[in-house]
Amino acid sequence: MMKLKNFTSVEDVQQPAALVEQARLLKQQPLAYHHLGRHKTLGLLFFNASLRTRMSTEVAARNLGMEVMVLNMNADTWKLEFNDGTVMNADRQEHIKEAAAVVSQYCQVLGVRSFPSLTDRQADYGEQIITSFVQYATVPVISLESATLHPLQSLADWLTIEEHKPVARPKVVLSWAPHPKALPQAVANSFLQWLRLAPVELVLAHPPGYELAPQFSAGVATTHNQQEALAGAHFVYAKNWSSYRDYGQVLQVDEDWRIDEEKMSLTDRGYFMHCLPVRRNVVVTDEVLDGQRSLVIAQAENRIYAAQAVLKNILEHADT
Amino acid sequence: MMKLKNFTSVEDVQQPAALVEQARLLKQQPLAYHHLGRHKTLGLLFFNASLRTRMSTEVAARNLGMEVMVLNMNADTWKLEFNDGTVMNADRQEHIKEAAAVVSQYCQVLGVRSFPSLTDRQADYGEQIITSFVQYATVPVISLESATLHPLQSLADWLTIEEHKPVARPKVVLSWAPHPKALPQAVANSFLQWLRLAPVELVLAHPPGYELAPQFSAGVATTHNQQEALAGAHFVYAKNWSSYRDYGQVLQVDEDWRIDEEKMSLTDRGYFMHCLPVRRNVVVTDEVLDGQRSLVIAQAENRIYAAQAVLKNILEHADT
Amino acid sequence: MMKLKNFTSVEDVQQPAALVEQARLLKQQPLAYHHLGRHKTLGLLFFNASLRTRMSTEVAARNLGMEVMVLNMNADTWKLEFNDGTVMNADRQEHIKEAAAVVSQYCQVLGVRSFPSLTDRQADYGEQIITSFVQYATVPVISLESATLHPLQSLADWLTIEEHKPVARPKVVLSWAPHPKALPQAVANSFLQWLRLAPVELVLAHPPGYELAPQFSAGVATTHNQQEALAGAHFVYAKNWSSYRDYGQVLQVDEDWRIDEEKMSLTDRGYFMHCLPVRRNVVVTDEVLDGQRSLVIAQAENRIYAAQAVLKNILEHADT
Repeated sequence: MMKLKNFTSVEDVQQPAALVEQARLLKQQPLAYHHLGRHKTLGLLFFNASLRTRMSTEVAARNLGMEVMVLNMNADTWKLEFNDGTVMNADRQEHIKEAAAVVSQYCQVLGVRSFPSLTDRQADYGEQIITSFVQYATVPVISLESATLHPLQSLADWLTIEEHKPVARPKVVLSWAPHPKALPQAVANSFLQWLRLAPVELVLAHPPGYELAPQFSAGVATTHNQQEALAGAHFVYAKNWSSYRDYGQVLQVDEDWRIDEEKMSLTDRGYFMHCLPVRRNVVVTDEVLDGQRSLVIAQAENRIYAAQAVLKNILEHADT
Repeated sequence: MMKLKNFTSVEDVQQPAALVEQARLLKQQPLAYHHLGRHKTLGLLFFNASLRTRMSTEVAARNLGMEVMVLNMNADTWKLEFNDGTVMNADRQEHIKEAAAVVSQYCQVLGVRSFPSLTDRQADYGEQIITSFVQYATVPVISLESATLHPLQSLADWLTIEEHKPVARPKVVLSWAPHPKALPQAVANSFLQWLRLAPVELVLAHPPGYELAPQFSAGVATTHNQQEALAGAHFVYAKNWSSYRDYGQVLQVDEDWRIDEEKMSLTDRGYFMHCLPVRRNVVVTDEVLDGQRSLVIAQAENRIYAAQAVLKNILEHADT
Repeated sequence: MMKLKNFTSVEDVQQPAALVEQARLLKQQPLAYHHLGRHKTLGLLFFNASLRTRMSTEVAARNLGMEVMVLNMNADTWKLEFNDGTVMNADRQEHIKEAAAVVSQYCQVLGVRSFPSLTDRQADYGEQIITSFVQYATVPVISLESATLHPLQSLADWLTIEEHKPVARPKVVLSWAPHPKALPQAVANSFLQWLRLAPVELVLAHPPGYELAPQFSAGVATTHNQQEALAGAHFVYAKNWSSYRDYGQVLQVDEDWRIDEEKMSLTDRGYFMHCLPVRRNVVVTDEVLDGQRSLVIAQAENRIYAAQAVLKNILEHADT
């Protein structure tokens, strides 16, 4: 048994590969640990929109017998203050110190989703929201995607690669893809953070200017030549992110980086992956997304078992 | 046992009268099939407001032992694209193909509510949203009211008539009623579609210009004379709808069509029915709505057993 | 066993002290009555934002085995009309008569939260919303804070005082505190209404102009001198409210009334209390709130057992 206190990054996990294996086993018997969460409640706190994360995490919790309470933090409740020492005489009505401590009275595990501003790099990479919840909550906290990381997605992605890999050490390419609006770097950061610990040949491809933060890309084979990267790939993970250097900027919307069948033909019968939601015919063509080698729905299904493996470890740890 | 795959129209139902009878039996023993939905989840997706549908369908699902997840599609999650082949570079972030397929990984049955635009008749009557969910979901889909139909309401209405009919073949009048704003034709369309299959004498009354789409009104006795229609009626179902011909228009707000005690006195001790919400003293007077012959609350209660009969059939079909 | 039909005020409770004791016992064995709410549903209807009330009441209901349905009345559903005899031809789509009666078909207990306008004193103190729900619902109704009262908060506060009191009859001071925006009088009104029935020495302190409504403050020792009030206090309950006389007005934002360590040193090792959310360094300093004598998180925890005691009595009453 792994001791998991919080889950905000791969760094919270002692043995990531073992967690992937646990998720794979839970997928075979989703209800095997239905007793574990009895009379325990998971609180899901959303500062931002969610479809997959919200539903898959709720299913995961119920598979473990937990109750779930969902709170839309912008619509249902008070505006939160995160800074210390503030004189709270403006529009923020409640401090994270109270909010996190109070919610910890009602839930045995908390999940928190919050997106970055994409305007203040230092603040975003400081991860104030998720870090504050970890600091002031008195129960375990799970990231449902934070400003710069999306660990549940990466865990599901790793599981999906594990299930489909045609060779022991497949070539996995994370390729930047075009998008009309600025998106977070969280999925890409997390993917590198997790997959470089996996038995894969990891390659990162992006246009100049889209370098990721060094703490995530360091040591990962990187190229500006997408075609070269795709050659012989077993998995192509397409994802847009805005610039880290010119923070939060869309430097170009270059359709040359869109994934289509011609590019997929460069791969070794490669699978196509994306975390969703995906903009069709911008990030990837209909043909690829609707094709036999697309794994996007399988990835979404695996979000259940990623969340369930994390919750299971947290519940087991809480019991000891 | 009836084989029910989806429930979007009476046309999905092999034996509507038998489904009404099943709803009636479930009302006597709501928890008799509590085992049927164990460890199964109903996902309720709302593109529009709901009170009765949301709560009654949730109660129905829980009576069958199901879990329920509710998603407000406009507030909680991403904007959906429904057209094929689009280059998604505008404001719609996720395609229905992915959304429906993904949600099908998390839920064993889906319910979808979406209202019409009332500006584009062809699009509304094309029922793109509910049809797309049926097409791309891999689990059964229930209409919680679509652009042009509201089958759960009609099933509950039929049950209510069945419970209260004073004669074997009662006279049932669907009467247009005034309303300050343009409303869908869905309730009226569905009522005709279902009740013309019931053992009733069905009469449709509306002012000129408020003809319903021919596929629903064909063969139904129709009059522009409300008083004539009410004579001897056992049930008066009042409902406003906007014009089908001058699509989505409010042609008049004619209080002459409002239901009051004087009009009810023309009936054969007739019951008053309405699907709710109802605008008091516009559609119907306080006196009638608060009177002993009003069935509106009974109709709302029967929404539980309508939904439960549908879910029960779907769950039983899924098991075989 | 106490007979509790509705819970909108201390006046609905035969023996308030006995209810506090029941809450205390439930806290020791939260799941002891898990059978009581089986196959029963609590509907929580929110006209206004909520964090503690929403989550604690849901936990309370689940501890009793109930299902919970939450409805955001402004976002999820129709706009309600509360006046009798209205011709509903404006923007309100459903009358409370139907809404309350319909929801009573789906839930065995209802909770309702609604804040005051703070512009029309007579209307606010008429408590139209909660009173209408009590009148038209056919099931018990619980106030989750109404225009002028917050009885679940007061019950939790009394329990918290009971748990921490160092002497049999502690001195309890309700002190007005500064706040940048106009707030309801509900928490203060309720606190007086409940605590004057408790074995405490109750003192009310506020600046001139912040007198509470006479029906709540009559007979309570009152002073404009905060320091005098704090002398020897065992509990200091800080709370802002807007003026009752100059209705809904913020007469001053006087930091002299803010609670700080210096003021707390006047007390007899007094505990600090607040219902939350609290504006740090406006109502109270960080030092006091983060100190060992702050009970705010304990108060929030006790909201569970306050709600659970109320629900338990209602469920038991319903069974007889």
